[in-house]
Amino acid sequence: MTNPVLVEVLRGAVVESAHRGAVSVFDADGKPVWEIGDTARPVFPRSAVKAIQALPLVESGAADAYGFGDRELALACASHSGEPEHAQLAAAMLAKVGLDKTALECGVHWPFDHNATVALARSGGAPSALHNNCSGKHAGFLCTCVHSGIAHAGYVKAGHALQDMVRDAVQSVTGAAHDVDHCGIDGCSIPTYAVPLKAFALGFARMATGRGFALERAKAAKRLLSACMAEPFLIAGTGKADLALMQAAPGRIFVKTGAEGVYCAALPELGLGIALKCDDGAGRGAEVMIAAVLANLLRSDEPLAAKLTELAHPAIESRVGAKVGSLRPTAALS
Amino acid sequence: MTNPVLVEVLRGAVVESAHRGAVSVFDADGKPVWEIGDTARPVFPRSAVKAIQALPLVESGAADAYGFGDRELALACASHSGEPEHAQLAAAMLAKVGLDKTALECGVHWPFDHNATVALARSGGAPSALHNNCSGKHAGFLCTCVHSGIAHAGYVKAGHALQDMVRDAVQSVTGAAHDVDHCGIDGCSIPTYAVPLKAFALGFARMATGRGFALERAKAAKRLLSACMAEPFLIAGTGKADLALMQAAPGRIFVKTGAEGVYCAALPELGLGIALKCDDGAGRGAEVMIAAVLANLLRSDEPLAAKLTELAHPAIESRVGAKVGSLRPTAALS
Repeated sequence: MTNPVLVEVLRGAVVESAHRGAVSVFDADGKPVWEIGDTARPVFPRSAVKAIQALPLVESGAADAYGFGDRELALACASHSGEPEHAQLAAAMLAKVGLDKTALECGVHWPFDHNATVALARSGGAPSALHNNCSGKHAGFLCTCVHSGIAHAGYVKAGHALQDMVRDAVQSVTGAAHDVDHCGIDGCSIPTYAVPLKAFALGFARMATGRGFALERAKAAKRLLSACMAEPFLIAGTGKADLALMQAAPGRIFVKTGAEGVYCAALPELGLGIALKCDDGAGRGAEVMIAAVLANLLRSDEPLAAKLTELAHPAIESRVGAKVGSLRPTAALS
Repeated sequence: MTNPVLVEVLRGAVVESAHRGAVSVFDADGKPVWEIGDTARPVFPRSAVKAIQALPLVESGAADAYGFGDRELALACASHSGEPEHAQLAAAMLAKVGLDKTALECGVHWPFDHNATVALARSGGAPSALHNNCSGKHAGFLCTCVHSGIAHAGYVKAGHALQDMVRDAVQSVTGAAHDVDHCGIDGCSIPTYAVPLKAFALGFARMATGRGFALERAKAAKRLLSACMAEPFLIAGTGKADLALMQAAPGRIFVKTGAEGVYCAALPELGLGIALKCDDGAGRGAEVMIAAVLANLLRSDEPLAAKLTELAHPAIESRVGAKVGSLRPTAALS
């Protein structure tokens, strides 16, 4: 099955490029509400399921033991831009358990945020694992290990007790078997499992509603999504789509991007979970798709839908800042 | 017509993302040699036709008047990485006509090369228009203006005499009408025209052979392609695909990337021109496509074909440098 074109890239009046994809929207009872393209095909969720991967941090009691509030929980679910606030908070989380950046096994990269990279270089500094976009998630992993009395060395590897907890959480929430044949290694070295796209839509409907969860999990899920919606800068960074989308309706929209064009999202007020994948892996395509899907699902709130529709039509500018094109969702998304 | 999947992105054993596209290979007599997908669809060539856009620099006599050799001509055809050697050479070209970076209308961006950006920031510097990947092309434009006695202000705009010369050159070489309905503005502010992909394949077959050109144009075209093949670092930069592809067979392969997943290429020894477009605009997809196409066309040279095939299978690494996936061409490219 060939997925439809969902996003067009225009330069002048000409469609220059196009992005195909699949979209799945589920309610928490397991009913598909809106499906586009092949939603049964296995997809690596990458960072889009960080909020599910953070369940052990809360459920183990670690988050409470270390006094973590919305800020720390949001960072544990983040793909952040490596701005000073992000790196400092990750360091502070590690300090709570007597660790520092040397315990992080996620690897080092320069901040995603260009201005943060320039500032770091100008100051004579160099990036550390704290600037890795996944450092908050890894700090959460390490806190979970320490609180649970698990030796943390090698915590990123399949077979480590921490990764068993993380895999079991995602498997249980999505209801999709996580098998070794569909296991890959993520950029930050932890296992990632490809399961049908629709399983993530169902999983986030459950995360948003707690439906089908034991009470403790329902509370943990709600606490994590609320933390992300309360601290959207910490889950993303300056100028990021996730920040703009969650700021458009504070507390009402949860979104999380994942590498290779994935989005997971939840709308608690509608009890819906959303998952989508841009076939070619382009973040710009996935961003337009999620904005257009949210605009459609929230169309009864006209001012909000207008804001989201604007986010679904980003401009393309020349190097002197003139508008020379734009992206737009196709009719398949309306 | 839906173009076929030409490149797969693997993580572990799972296809995570995929890139569709179209490929056209022509000889200089106008005979299609190999066509994949919809090669009649209009495509913006973007920077992939810079060597054609540089014809007026040579044909006007400007290049000779200012003593430009392979280095300057390659930079005039480049999408360079903004490394010091690139920026300095662009400045030197401008100095020949008594101009400096303030005459450039391409806009400013930080160097494409990450190490160059970090070094520039560490030194306390800031980028100028010389670091713009198109600064060599624009320096060539300005030299053409000055030599031809054309006032250079506004030289990027449609309707300026310089842009008329540039458009006429591309139109004549490709044989495809450049009409206003298919005109867009490129990132560096000059007009770019969408014409059928196959016209660029034919155009580069002509550039490589001179077939169908007047003698002066044939000489200018050969001189420009030879300059690019002789100075592949200047046309691209550290670690770039164009550099690796041209270094694989010095003097035998001309390639030039363009934004939004375009490649134009020429194989003088076979008298062939090549043009391709990755539908979604991904550079990584286009790079695998061009490497695989070249490997196929040059398959009789087994060691070279092996090198090109290796370039068609780049690894994907985690942030600690472990190989976690790869890209590969599909059977449609073999």
